[in-house]
Amino acid sequence: MRIGLDMMGGDFAPVEAVKGVKLFLETVASDAHLVLIGDEQVLSPLLSEAGLDQSRYSVVHSSQVIGMNEHPTKALKEKQQSSIAIGFYLLHNKKVDAFISAGNTGAMMVGALYTVKTIEGIQRPTISTIVPRENGVNGILLDVGINADCKPENLLQFAVLGSLYSQHILKIDSPRIGLLNVGEEEGKGNLLAQATYPLLKESTQLNFVGNVEGRDLFEDKADVIVCEGFTGNVILKLAESFYGITKRRNIRDEYIDKFNFESYGGTPILGVNEPVIIGHGISEGPAFKNMILLAQQMIESKLMDKIRESFVTVK
Amino acid sequence: MRIGLDMMGGDFAPVEAVKGVKLFLETVASDAHLVLIGDEQVLSPLLSEAGLDQSRYSVVHSSQVIGMNEHPTKALKEKQQSSIAIGFYLLHNKKVDAFISAGNTGAMMVGALYTVKTIEGIQRPTISTIVPRENGVNGILLDVGINADCKPENLLQFAVLGSLYSQHILKIDSPRIGLLNVGEEEGKGNLLAQATYPLLKESTQLNFVGNVEGRDLFEDKADVIVCEGFTGNVILKLAESFYGITKRRNIRDEYIDKFNFESYGGTPILGVNEPVIIGHGISEGPAFKNMILLAQQMIESKLMDKIRESFVTVK
Repeated sequence: MRIGLDMMGGDFAPVEAVKGVKLFLETVASDAHLVLIGDEQVLSPLLSEAGLDQSRYSVVHSSQVIGMNEHPTKALKEKQQSSIAIGFYLLHNKKVDAFISAGNTGAMMVGALYTVKTIEGIQRPTISTIVPRENGVNGILLDVGINADCKPENLLQFAVLGSLYSQHILKIDSPRIGLLNVGEEEGKGNLLAQATYPLLKESTQLNFVGNVEGRDLFEDKADVIVCEGFTGNVILKLAESFYGITKRRNIRDEYIDKFNFESYGGTPILGVNEPVIIGHGISEGPAFKNMILLAQQMIESKLMDKIRESFVTVK
Repeated sequence: MRIGLDMMGGDFAPVEAVKGVKLFLETVASDAHLVLIGDEQVLSPLLSEAGLDQSRYSVVHSSQVIGMNEHPTKALKEKQQSSIAIGFYLLHNKKVDAFISAGNTGAMMVGALYTVKTIEGIQRPTISTIVPRENGVNGILLDVGINADCKPENLLQFAVLGSLYSQHILKIDSPRIGLLNVGEEEGKGNLLAQATYPLLKESTQLNFVGNVEGRDLFEDKADVIVCEGFTGNVILKLAESFYGITKRRNIRDEYIDKFNFESYGGTPILGVNEPVIIGHGISEGPAFKNMILLAQQMIESKLMDKIRESFVTVK
């Protein structure tokens, strides 16, 4: 298995990306070969200094970088020698089995949609966030930002994608699916939630457990919680801010520390044909390590195949 | 000034309601006369025992109670001798200047809309929540639950209502208005947020400061944050759950304790003609006291007149 990693993406690249590679190679049992994409002149001394096993990685040179604030489509078109453009080229041509970047999120989305493309039958790919729970078992919430306006069918598909991710990556059997809502009873909610409820209820692919309220998010009520990306994004950022508040107030708590979402690494774009993982701009070493590990799990579990099979059957 | 209080509403009524009355009468400088609505046989011994100044209150007997799970419209129609029905009767007939209940929220909404009625020019009344901030100055977020689906014009009106509430009750001069959104820049967001932004920006009544993200909610970016009631309700319940998490984990922090939203008392229904305040079902003494105090502030500041004036000018 070959995992492509953009070494130039993120606020602390390439130093933290190199740290992440080192952490991965030294702590994870794996036969993955890492394909490190970045400026060779910058990377070489850092990689030598890190003293890595040279048989475990190779470097693909990229002479350009897409900045965090560049226009995604324009940048991808004009900077074909950028680490992100090369990463997608390698992924599209099966030279790598997954591609990871903590760089320009928009460019990652555009690259994924236009090169590896959306899986047939899926209307909209989605991104999720881990939901840390007090019992130690992580749940997920999706969509958290790329689909601000959704139709009921989109939420149904997010539920299927989240369910498969939860089964194959988080190893939860028959994950319980909850619909984020403003009340417990069927019939509650805005028009979208009202119309989505029966779709989730009737789906034979899902273990739907009903509505889940804001107060239930971190409880053990559902393993996969679906909502449109507007509310999901607000929730994610709000939860991150709680972590920030506790830090500023010198509160140290093992569970609340799990609200440091940056530490998780990144989120896969669920619904595209190959594993693509988008990292937080401020990713540090452990986050890069976690993203490489996630890519490995996505490849090993054949998650993309399971998703393709699932959407073929639904149609 | 006469303030009507439903003594039978809420999970801990009438005991906690009596405690709240006592707290108010003994700790707040006020010439308000309290009109306590409830079952006289139940209330009399409790009130005597509390040793209150009898000149400061009177009791209006009600023989029925609307349960927390009763259908609002049906219950109000069939239980005309209930404390909530009597409260609205008194308010409508100017026998009291404000009405407070921690009982059936739906019945309170229906009562407000059908007796004291929506102020002319306002499309939808709204409810808000206090947003505690680290600098000690409270902001507000609205709508938090009665308007799950909104149009841009609704959000504009919520902003005006929130701005007036913030000025006259929270005593913030020229409150900064923020639009809850998924990004900082104009043009971000779902269709609703995109269409609302220019309305807020162009309003001469508002000090609009732009988009506010989930992570900014508890920061000092805006004093009034507007959103539709679906996201607002999820946020409110999520913030409450963080308080619960910290309690379960034995974290005591003066600021985080302010996320105990129950302690604030209740929320006024903004946009109806008279002060109506809805309390949390599990309100205790201090919450009842705070609701009476809020009613007094709403009457003293002539908030309803300011709202009426403001909406006459907008039209």
